[in-house]
Amino acid sequence: MSTQLLKESRQWDTARRDKTDRMNSVSSLVNGNIIPSENITQVLEAVIRPGDRVVLEGNNQKQADFLSRALAQVDPEQVHDLHMLFPSISRPEHLDIFEDGIARRVDFAFSGPQAARVAQLVGDGTLDVGAIHTYLELYSRMFLDLTPRVALVAAVAADRQGNLYTGPNTEDTPTIAEATAFRSGIVIAQVNEIVDELPRVDVPAGWVDLVVEADSPFEVEPLFTRDPRKLTDVHVLLAMITLRGVYEKHQVTSLNHGVGLDTAAIELLLPTYGESLGLRGKICTHWALNPHPSLIPAIETGWVKKISAFGGEVGMSRYVAARPDIFATGIDGSLRSNRMAAQSAGLYAADMFVGSTLQVDALGNSSTVTAGRLSGFGGAPNLGSDSRGRRHPTPAWMDMAQGEGQLGIHRGKKLVVQIAETFNAGADPKFVEQLDAVAVGQKSGMSLAPVMVYGDDLTHLVSEEGVAYLYKTQSLDERRKAVAAIAGVTPIGRESRPEDVEQLRRDGVVAFPEDLGIDRAQANRNMLAAHSIESLVEWSGGLYEPPAKFRSW
Amino acid sequence: MSTQLLKESRQWDTARRDKTDRMNSVSSLVNGNIIPSENITQVLEAVIRPGDRVVLEGNNQKQADFLSRALAQVDPEQVHDLHMLFPSISRPEHLDIFEDGIARRVDFAFSGPQAARVAQLVGDGTLDVGAIHTYLELYSRMFLDLTPRVALVAAVAADRQGNLYTGPNTEDTPTIAEATAFRSGIVIAQVNEIVDELPRVDVPAGWVDLVVEADSPFEVEPLFTRDPRKLTDVHVLLAMITLRGVYEKHQVTSLNHGVGLDTAAIELLLPTYGESLGLRGKICTHWALNPHPSLIPAIETGWVKKISAFGGEVGMSRYVAARPDIFATGIDGSLRSNRMAAQSAGLYAADMFVGSTLQVDALGNSSTVTAGRLSGFGGAPNLGSDSRGRRHPTPAWMDMAQGEGQLGIHRGKKLVVQIAETFNAGADPKFVEQLDAVAVGQKSGMSLAPVMVYGDDLTHLVSEEGVAYLYKTQSLDERRKAVAAIAGVTPIGRESRPEDVEQLRRDGVVAFPEDLGIDRAQANRNMLAAHSIESLVEWSGGLYEPPAKFRSW
Repeated sequence: MSTQLLKESRQWDTARRDKTDRMNSVSSLVNGNIIPSENITQVLEAVIRPGDRVVLEGNNQKQADFLSRALAQVDPEQVHDLHMLFPSISRPEHLDIFEDGIARRVDFAFSGPQAARVAQLVGDGTLDVGAIHTYLELYSRMFLDLTPRVALVAAVAADRQGNLYTGPNTEDTPTIAEATAFRSGIVIAQVNEIVDELPRVDVPAGWVDLVVEADSPFEVEPLFTRDPRKLTDVHVLLAMITLRGVYEKHQVTSLNHGVGLDTAAIELLLPTYGESLGLRGKICTHWALNPHPSLIPAIETGWVKKISAFGGEVGMSRYVAARPDIFATGIDGSLRSNRMAAQSAGLYAADMFVGSTLQVDALGNSSTVTAGRLSGFGGAPNLGSDSRGRRHPTPAWMDMAQGEGQLGIHRGKKLVVQIAETFNAGADPKFVEQLDAVAVGQKSGMSLAPVMVYGDDLTHLVSEEGVAYLYKTQSLDERRKAVAAIAGVTPIGRESRPEDVEQLRRDGVVAFPEDLGIDRAQANRNMLAAHSIESLVEWSGGLYEPPAKFRSW
Repeated sequence: MSTQLLKESRQWDTARRDKTDRMNSVSSLVNGNIIPSENITQVLEAVIRPGDRVVLEGNNQKQADFLSRALAQVDPEQVHDLHMLFPSISRPEHLDIFEDGIARRVDFAFSGPQAARVAQLVGDGTLDVGAIHTYLELYSRMFLDLTPRVALVAAVAADRQGNLYTGPNTEDTPTIAEATAFRSGIVIAQVNEIVDELPRVDVPAGWVDLVVEADSPFEVEPLFTRDPRKLTDVHVLLAMITLRGVYEKHQVTSLNHGVGLDTAAIELLLPTYGESLGLRGKICTHWALNPHPSLIPAIETGWVKKISAFGGEVGMSRYVAARPDIFATGIDGSLRSNRMAAQSAGLYAADMFVGSTLQVDALGNSSTVTAGRLSGFGGAPNLGSDSRGRRHPTPAWMDMAQGEGQLGIHRGKKLVVQIAETFNAGADPKFVEQLDAVAVGQKSGMSLAPVMVYGDDLTHLVSEEGVAYLYKTQSLDERRKAVAAIAGVTPIGRESRPEDVEQLRRDGVVAFPEDLGIDRAQANRNMLAAHSIESLVEWSGGLYEPPAKFRSW
């Protein structure tokens, strides 16, 4: 056959030409690469075209809120039917644009603060959901089949060339900028200020097309701060069971913690209860974790060697800057976080994920999606899953290997732990036969129920009743029995037969506090290394500067 | 308890102080941030200390060969017992340093060209292997528990501030530099030249401590070029079976190909056989792939929408630069590759991995490690594994979901395909009862056998006999029978009983060419869209410039 007959006659640089065209259309509205703040809406109307795929930083913590407010002001006659990519749907105007017709479709990872409204808009047919991703999955698709046409990001400062400085909340700004810039997309950055010289460069100028000074510094939320005052004796009991029944038993050195109160209690028990068990230096040395204030006492007492951070945390900047042996910091002295690298570290380098959930079903599937709330799960699906491409063994990971393997071949497994008090505050059981997420998924027309962590990835389930070592179960029936054995007086727990429970204990599939050498009566919040935010400030030598809403003194 | 009693009295910036000390020690050997080329060995002797963890780029394609040669020249009395991190052990001096005592321990991902010598040095006790990783796993650990003290990387050019330009082979240079720089490590870059102004910035100057002009341009290997002349009728038959039995059946749009001849044949069949099946635009639109020359005809005939590249390919620069709608390119016009992002895309965004292997066992486990060769697997374990954190459905991925699920919960699975001709060239069977890798692992004292792709991740196995749909098998016994059914006259294949094979065909667990509408007699290399490198050059309109060793005209 003839080569020439088959070849397409086409242009191969349509995106680049289109970008030139768009950039030319704003030449009278900008000064070089600087957008005068008052022109921002007009510029967005000119550079964004109907149907465009637009990523908005809508990040887990840091918000490009000047840009999101400006996007909500564009004329829907000019700009409509956008396909939005949001790592996090965090702010009201992130959804206003759907109600106004500016946007139509969304792919996202997390929508915690806006979860109820997302569900409502999906129900109304106002918003089409592509899929709810985990962060690393969404970034990955930006490099392949969801390449953005326009990116709207936030940084602390830009210099006049357009280099960006993010400060501690680097998060996913470089990732989004790279995915867009190298596909002839347009990258617009809001900055708190434009300066002559940056403390450091986080995103090179060549990746940034336009810079605009925001009317106020970008919003950033202290999502990872847990007030020790909220920790109860039950949290302490859960933490003790998890420490002995999981961390100590498997000698876990590298891990990620979710943001629940249960894991905050563990962090605050390390310098006290953990120390009394002689575990310092033996467990919990390497963390994929944001700068949690509740980890300060463990850091100060020498438990922690390294932390790989997804983002920063409000109030922790001075503390982090003073602890460069622990945190990744730049030549400016401040944290360099990297959500993509830390998610990858959590997947491939950490031995364990420990999280919390709102519901867990009879087979150990868990979700924070409940009736009327499409929340998304952020990093949890990635962090709370087995990394099957992993090839480096560690003692904890190898501990999960069951049996001899077939044909000389075996492998370990990541520890995936959920801590689930049997009842949620109020009185509804956390252990349920079927997740609400199944009905929510059906109602929203999703082809997959929105599951946070799948039961077959879960290796350990912990309640105040004890630990279920699910990785040891040989069948779905046995897994169900192990879940029921620690489900207390929930309907699931009441299914449990005493003779089954005794068999599971003898087989080491379930352990109760007494099996782990824990006296329930000892579990007391006095055991925590800090009982208040003020105490965390003291532990930090005054370096931790909590935001006002956490100050009570 | 008292806060003060528990707190450690310690310095928190030891790495930063140590870096300052090391940098001060070379002040008389350098001009600002520039190392005069002739001083390189002295500088390495001064900034690298015994026992350091050092990452050397030792990349899949691009080699910091000036720096590796200089490292091999340091005085082992001064610099010894290094812990090396190599994405790829590619060059002789990468191993000389172990023989000379300069280095002692290694963590790596790939060692193809040096596999025999690695096995030998391990056997001698000269080299301690930490683990053999997949690339993404090794980078992940650099951000957590294997943070480098010194990084030795390669770029095309630096400016006088120390910004780096990588050209198309960006690969993992920014990743390695970031992991090192923000942990107060020392980053040294060899460059082909130091210039006043860079075409673009791939690594900001703030991440680079010292720059040295190499005595010759860095080495880069054309690892992804397959000469169509080497493709046989059997490769074409394998490609036809895979196209119809896997790609067409599951309507796979996003994928990654290994570097085998089998997948090269598939690439070259798309514009011919694929076109005749009416599949253009329906399959194979998005690729996580290096710029394979054998994909040029498919690109030119409009099959390919986007490619996310791990690295570049020698000779493909002008072609890639002329196709920015397909490839990620920068303001300089040339490819920006990113090994970490493309590996992540291959894990989370691609529906399918298709690879080749040297051995496959009776349960579908596969490995390219054979007797006397510790080769490592590069990206294959990551790309060839199910991404269990994935939450976005596609038709192909959902096709792998088996059964109704439990409690309303199900999920899809990544398609992981191995193409395995029943016999390797020569006469040894590729299908074996047990992998040689098991014995090699035991002999090398590894706690895990070096498996490339695990059988329980494998969804499809293809031989010239047919396709085994392993994702449909319900038990290990059924999986073994399905593997045997397509294993031809190998010892494994001879185990197969005709009545089992017929049952598997009826159940759709195995399909033979006749079941797929393929006439074996039609499989002919004349069906390939190109039969030579010269023909690929013609397809590219002269933009592809193959290196001399591939030129025969």
